[in-house]
Amino acid sequence: MGVRLYMGLVHFPVYNKNHEKIASAITTLDIHDLARLAKTYDVKRVFIVTPLDDQQKLARRVLSHWIQGYGGRYNRHRKEALECVSVVESLKQAMGRIQEIEGEPPLIIATDAANQEERSISWIDARQAIWSNQVVALMFGTAWGLHEEVIKEANRVLTPIPGKGGYNHLSVRTAAAIILDRLAG
Amino acid sequence: MGVRLYMGLVHFPVYNKNHEKIASAITTLDIHDLARLAKTYDVKRVFIVTPLDDQQKLARRVLSHWIQGYGGRYNRHRKEALECVSVVESLKQAMGRIQEIEGEPPLIIATDAANQEERSISWIDARQAIWSNQVVALMFGTAWGLHEEVIKEANRVLTPIPGKGGYNHLSVRTAAAIILDRLAG
Repeated sequence: MGVRLYMGLVHFPVYNKNHEKIASAITTLDIHDLARLAKTYDVKRVFIVTPLDDQQKLARRVLSHWIQGYGGRYNRHRKEALECVSVVESLKQAMGRIQEIEGEPPLIIATDAANQEERSISWIDARQAIWSNQVVALMFGTAWGLHEEVIKEANRVLTPIPGKGGYNHLSVRTAAAIILDRLAG
Repeated sequence: MGVRLYMGLVHFPVYNKNHEKIASAITTLDIHDLARLAKTYDVKRVFIVTPLDDQQKLARRVLSHWIQGYGGRYNRHRKEALECVSVVESLKQAMGRIQEIEGEPPLIIATDAANQEERSISWIDARQAIWSNQVVALMFGTAWGLHEEVIKEANRVLTPIPGKGGYNHLSVRTAAAIILDRLAG
């Protein structure tokens, strides 16, 4: 039996460099990288979360090119990966979709480069939740990370990836890769 | 004592989709992602390998923007990461640099999405080599992966990352993240 694992890539609300609440722009490479990771680690669906109309359109155009358009004929592995991506306007909408699919709400685990003492969950416990067949949604923040509103909506916050000498500035793509490999690999 | 670990991102010779030998174009995001990974996992230097003049110039322009230019003032974490990146024209030149720094040649470990029976090295043995303070250079291929010429120049080839259902089409950025976390994390 597979895991019941979901991922969300959040573009709003996130922080900018000055710790202000913003909506970040979509990096199309992120969509590809997360979809390919999802396919590798048996993640059921990836949600690209943005409330901005033009950004949703951009994301959908990328998906359509690689699923229905020329991209799909050019590279079927990419098509196969991108088919598991959905564009949604909010975290709430993503959670609603998961509830529809699974018939129960997911355990929402937020990821953050900073340690969140409250409600933190260890790598071992997160892995255990996933492999005991709980429905789990891993939330990743773009820009300077998930806004505290998202952190508060989550049930738990994953312990950060410890960098040598305290360096903890990975891209969301590579952080997601490491986290998926540790939890679902 | 830290590890004596190096990384190379090879743009030539690599394969294209039709298994032809090509020089791939630089993806500037790769330089950032690999530099940030290097900083996180204590990698001593990242070599961007390309024989193409204009591509070397592009890579150096990115580095210069983030190290000496505005980027360095805007984001010091990025500056700190990109300072460990060098642009070289060949694998041989990269290996020469490592020899100069360390006073001995590295164990060259190539990474490949396909299993290479000959000279393959397990994750455990590769981790052991790194942590027993051997000089190790991990080689990553862009496009459709390292050309067999590079595979032949390497001392060993790392066992591939096993994807669920045989899917093994990660981006080089996310594959490098997973490999570094497993070997040097």
